Amino acid sequence: MTTTNTPLNHHLERELRAALRQGQLSLSPADLKTFAVDQGPVTDYQEPVAVVWAESVADVQAVVRLAGKYAVPIVARGAGTGVSGGAHATAGSLVLNLERMNKILELSPEDEIARVEPGVVNADLNEAAAAFGLMFAPDPASYKVSTIGGNVATNAGGLRCAKYGVTRDAVLGLEVVLADGTLIRTGHRTFKGVAGYDLTGLFVGSEGTLGIVVSATVRLKYLPADIRTLAVFFPDVQSAAAGVLALGAARVQPCILEMLDGPSMEELDFRNGSKLASRGTALLLVQFDGLSAGQEVQIATVALQAAGGSVSEEDSQEAADLVELRRNSRGMDVDTENRVGEDVAVPRSQLVHYIVALEEMASRHGVGLRVIAHAGDGNLHPTFWVPGMDAQSISALNAALDESIDKALELGGTITGEHGIGQYKRRWLPLEQAHEVLQIQLNIKKLFDPQGILNPGKAIPGA
Amino acid sequence: MTTTNTPLNHHLERELRAALRQGQLSLSPADLKTFAVDQGPVTDYQEPVAVVWAESVADVQAVVRLAGKYAVPIVARGAGTGVSGGAHATAGSLVLNLERMNKILELSPEDEIARVEPGVVNADLNEAAAAFGLMFAPDPASYKVSTIGGNVATNAGGLRCAKYGVTRDAVLGLEVVLADGTLIRTGHRTFKGVAGYDLTGLFVGSEGTLGIVVSATVRLKYLPADIRTLAVFFPDVQSAAAGVLALGAARVQPCILEMLDGPSMEELDFRNGSKLASRGTALLLVQFDGLSAGQEVQIATVALQAAGGSVSEEDSQEAADLVELRRNSRGMDVDTENRVGEDVAVPRSQLVHYIVALEEMASRHGVGLRVIAHAGDGNLHPTFWVPGMDAQSISALNAALDESIDKALELGGTITGEHGIGQYKRRWLPLEQAHEVLQIQLNIKKLFDPQGILNPGKAIPGA
Repeated sequence: MTTTNTPLNHHLERELRAALRQGQLSLSPADLKTFAVDQGPVTDYQEPVAVVWAESVADVQAVVRLAGKYAVPIVARGAGTGVSGGAHATAGSLVLNLERMNKILELSPEDEIARVEPGVVNADLNEAAAAFGLMFAPDPASYKVSTIGGNVATNAGGLRCAKYGVTRDAVLGLEVVLADGTLIRTGHRTFKGVAGYDLTGLFVGSEGTLGIVVSATVRLKYLPADIRTLAVFFPDVQSAAAGVLALGAARVQPCILEMLDGPSMEELDFRNGSKLASRGTALLLVQFDGLSAGQEVQIATVALQAAGGSVSEEDSQEAADLVELRRNSRGMDVDTENRVGEDVAVPRSQLVHYIVALEEMASRHGVGLRVIAHAGDGNLHPTFWVPGMDAQSISALNAALDESIDKALELGGTITGEHGIGQYKRRWLPLEQAHEVLQIQLNIKKLFDPQGILNPGKAIPGA
Repeated sequence: MTTTNTPLNHHLERELRAALRQGQLSLSPADLKTFAVDQGPVTDYQEPVAVVWAESVADVQAVVRLAGKYAVPIVARGAGTGVSGGAHATAGSLVLNLERMNKILELSPEDEIARVEPGVVNADLNEAAAAFGLMFAPDPASYKVSTIGGNVATNAGGLRCAKYGVTRDAVLGLEVVLADGTLIRTGHRTFKGVAGYDLTGLFVGSEGTLGIVVSATVRLKYLPADIRTLAVFFPDVQSAAAGVLALGAARVQPCILEMLDGPSMEELDFRNGSKLASRGTALLLVQFDGLSAGQEVQIATVALQAAGGSVSEEDSQEAADLVELRRNSRGMDVDTENRVGEDVAVPRSQLVHYIVALEEMASRHGVGLRVIAHAGDGNLHPTFWVPGMDAQSISALNAALDESIDKALELGGTITGEHGIGQYKRRWLPLEQAHEVLQIQLNIKKLFDPQGILNPGKAIPGA
């Protein structure tokens, strides 16, 4: 966890200072430390050579051009809430902080779109949209602090994407600064558009490795007129997983469908003083929205009770608290060496089988396990932990982790449902994707970034 | 409209016959003629040198490899219902017909996905899905005959995409045969997945220029429990366009929101014996689905009446007929030299302005105009026509067409909302996209298809 700090090249420093205003460049040890990492596991701690706060598209272009001139890597970041290390600094890198580019450039209630700078906080966009009965649907657990730029970079999911889709589904167009400083526009500000290849989709989720997103045009959705929430407790987590399928079979679409196992509820109770664990061993948190929420609640109740669930409708404050509690469970998942949260997704029919397998492997390896899932999407966040930091414990933890990845793939799943590959998961990507597919991605990376200055060592292996 | 037929290279013919079964290769003049064009405008009529019907992935791989060996272009096609000439044969090309690859490989009611071969007809997948209370949401007007492979190639839209999104939003993963014959898998069979770059999105809408899609894994949605339809007549088309905004301001989301102007209704009446034109001068066809359809109809009625609409709820048979009539309006849009249908999209707030401008330019150029629109998406299909085929008339028609494209772009729109660039619209793409963006797409094309054998002369300029 130590690094030999590379100093910033003096010529580059002089040129950066000439291009930027005072207060936009920092070499202070405190800043270099603060912006060395995001919230992902740290396997190769490196501090950047400098932190730059861009305040305009021109700033981003200037910094990218200088980085190219001096062959210095750029790690773009927003709030740094990513959990795969996509915004970890790498050796000799400049961190390009986009948080000050936080203007909502346009919010059109008639066109039902917004155009925002990358540093706009998700919650701020939602607050502005709500004034017009609109919302930006993607709601990663970090929505109160995470930025739209970060949401775009990771193609962030969240709770509501069970019904409303992920960030990709909300992005209509982008402005992107390419590796040579060129500014391009992709996509459209219309709801539909099929002119040329889908470059917008290619940039979304590319973790700053193909270009720097400097604005996003996003589609807004209608704020629901009604929201109804069920807490459904089950005797065990397998039954809860079966409840997810029972609900699906009733063909009603919740906007939120979360699953928490017993250890997760205990952890939340311990941290928040709630009393979830006293109500059952596994919880499905089911929310319906829109004008039909009441009818959907009735249909869901019948289906979930038949599946063995104990169903109670929460009043709106309790429900809001419960959802907020679930969102905040994110805090307890920040990884340490002896506790790692995962982000696999499996086809929904495999949820039950996967959870059984997880419990078996945790028990066999002698590691702790708790499971929280965006169950509606089959997207699980199992957390494994060991009490000690000794080599044997860490080895058992890693063995369980690797096995959980293998099992998800065996069941037709993916190694990352919504957190992205970043730095941490690159080692697992070849298990999911064939050599030819990895090679295509590497070729695309080289096409966009021949010098390899844009967030090297992230998103795909070999780059 | 004539061509000097290039003969099929004899060595290639022998190798194709060796690789395929009898009945999979045709050189008959009738077949070469049948498969020379899709439903797009023909500006450079060319017959293929041969037509090949692939029946398996191995067939596709064999044909692609041989095409590469002999440097012969391949034009992949399904039902050929595209209207931008994306499946027009080009000089010396092999047409690769995928209609026989029409198996639904898997339909999982629990996972709510299907995996299909490219030749599966949209309506057939929907029929199979409906047995489980599910649907494949994209519904291009050609859904009764168009194939999923074609829907994917063009990123097809349709009526229901106002609520459910376009083909891209329904595709989770693909199997693709690359230009060198390699078979790759992209995406995932889970609802969410962010492993690596979004290659799936890159192939969707790429019109067979980057690879040949040999299977698609698609997400299915729940069939709505209720469907309610309003016919809303307005005194003029500008008022109808304003009605679209009034409905949006009421923040209810129809699944279908179509607009027909007077001439479109007259044309439908003439062809189908309906009596739409007697009911008003412009029509909004508004459909809500799901459990809240009834409540939404009430809210919409108030909003649309306040906007000057004469609102009547159709009984379900009338409504089905009306929607079917609208879908079949597609038939009357097949282009001829003196009648061309467009496919622009504009931000919704610009609908009114765009329609006023269209009427002005039609009048000024002395050309006929009728307008049908997926108004909920701001996606318009204006059709311009002239009675004569003389040079002056055709010139006036083309001037109006060019102007309508310019105006859509001026209002923040796109030159193609859902039909694709194909062959016909390549000339307009540089009006919408900057040189740098076109160059990136050309580079991507070269990366995937260095020999330029995959549907050359389509989708992007210069390839």
